[in-house]
Amino acid sequence: MTRFDITILGCGSAMPTTLHNPPSQLVELNEKLFMIDCGEGTQLQMRKYKTRIGKLQALFISHLHGDHIFGLPGLISTLSMLGRTDDLHIYAHREIELLLKPLLIYMGQHMSFKIELHPLNAGKKEVIYENKTFQVSSFPLKHRVNTNGFLFEEKEAPRHIIREMINYYNIPVREIAAIKAGADFITDNGTLIPNHILTRPPSPPRRYAYCSDTAYAPEIIPYIKGVDLLYHEATFAESELSRAAETYHSTARQAAEIAAAASVKKLLIGHFSSRYNELETLLHEARAVFSDTELADEGKIVSL
Amino acid sequence: MTRFDITILGCGSAMPTTLHNPPSQLVELNEKLFMIDCGEGTQLQMRKYKTRIGKLQALFISHLHGDHIFGLPGLISTLSMLGRTDDLHIYAHREIELLLKPLLIYMGQHMSFKIELHPLNAGKKEVIYENKTFQVSSFPLKHRVNTNGFLFEEKEAPRHIIREMINYYNIPVREIAAIKAGADFITDNGTLIPNHILTRPPSPPRRYAYCSDTAYAPEIIPYIKGVDLLYHEATFAESELSRAAETYHSTARQAAEIAAAASVKKLLIGHFSSRYNELETLLHEARAVFSDTELADEGKIVSL
Repeated sequence: MTRFDITILGCGSAMPTTLHNPPSQLVELNEKLFMIDCGEGTQLQMRKYKTRIGKLQALFISHLHGDHIFGLPGLISTLSMLGRTDDLHIYAHREIELLLKPLLIYMGQHMSFKIELHPLNAGKKEVIYENKTFQVSSFPLKHRVNTNGFLFEEKEAPRHIIREMINYYNIPVREIAAIKAGADFITDNGTLIPNHILTRPPSPPRRYAYCSDTAYAPEIIPYIKGVDLLYHEATFAESELSRAAETYHSTARQAAEIAAAASVKKLLIGHFSSRYNELETLLHEARAVFSDTELADEGKIVSL
Repeated sequence: MTRFDITILGCGSAMPTTLHNPPSQLVELNEKLFMIDCGEGTQLQMRKYKTRIGKLQALFISHLHGDHIFGLPGLISTLSMLGRTDDLHIYAHREIELLLKPLLIYMGQHMSFKIELHPLNAGKKEVIYENKTFQVSSFPLKHRVNTNGFLFEEKEAPRHIIREMINYYNIPVREIAAIKAGADFITDNGTLIPNHILTRPPSPPRRYAYCSDTAYAPEIIPYIKGVDLLYHEATFAESELSRAAETYHSTARQAAEIAAAASVKKLLIGHFSSRYNELETLLHEARAVFSDTELADEGKIVSL
């Protein structure tokens, strides 16, 4: 099975602390590396955790609050110093141009690659990236400014050939593609060998959803139904429920309620307020509702 | 004696590494806190080293290369979240407006304080900040873009009163200011008590000079003559002498030559290229020319 890893580079919130960096994470999927959000110091975190900065394909920016974007100038400048030539694709709300344009003017001729900006639709779910084996969608969250979540989904893979059976029935190479796609095979003497004898079902497609920043929003449940891993913000403990509502953030319990209602397999909570020196209360409050919950932490890798 | 401390927050160069952060340092002088340069992650370094972010008076930006300024948006945004109301004074080349303006538009009404920009003169030495006890000047360095060094200088303090002598001669309070300024005292019976009996000389004024980034530039020597501490960039070892010249940076030996020619008391070298995992060669090469040389390091504090 190909790698499908999520690496947490930062799981703090607006105010950085010595415990947590501003938001950023990497998704490595089928040999491609993507970044979600890029708070200040993200490139330093990439070095710390020895991630392959040169493999970065695209950036997905959930919204334009500073803690999610202030690492962009440094990252872009470093990629250019490293001599990147491939276009860098940035999926973000259109207003990011206000911040990127002066940077690009400033870098001018020193810029070794082009930035391709793909504006996000804050109103509805859309497929924003697609290749042969997986796709990425964005969908609306509920925050003080336009904010999108992201869904990384593998596509249904073809069935796996059982090598021994292919040899046993002496099946010619030209038939393999059709058999992978589900065809039966007819031997020289006319016997039909049903496909399920020749193949195994593929691993079920894996899915990862990122939901940050957002108020408690049951309307997102259809977008994230049954995912293998849900990252959901949990800025506050339940004691700050009203503060969470005012600031359009979630409590840990609310994150767990979304996870339970969406029947996800596992919940990872993050975007912790700087007021918490320890996170046991948040973990405890979430697990009371959804037991398969973990705390995000800088350097943590979750493999699907 | 009042505190005059330099704290290194970052002493790397353009490309951050796991060993060194981008350039930034703090100067604490007479209960006031100043920052020189502000590379990405500077606010995180301030937290790590428990510096008093709320006491920050002004920022001095040597030049507009990314590694010296990409920490500004995060720092400004955090100061605003902390509710700062005092103006923040930024001394930088005028073109910094290109990068600051969109940030300020973006922050809009959320900005809790005003930024007062003071353009630097890249052509000659100027006093840019002054109060009763010290002053800061900027002076031109030699780099690929307009770049200024900074000189922090205490003013000559008044002489110290010797309390025991004041009591012994029963000198009235109204005479004290004149005596501090150098006056003699005449007793009731007409005896002249010379000033040097009543006072001790003040500590000599302390001076700190910051020179980064710069090529080897003997023309800066008059500006930094005899300072107590010189921070001078030493991006390269001597083996990269031609690379240093091409990029308008200095080798460690060149930094030491400037220190020796300017008869400074102590040299601190920094702005190390990311190619060096260990800095013994640079230290060795500098000390061969100027023995009182130290390596900068994140978290290092030098007290004058």
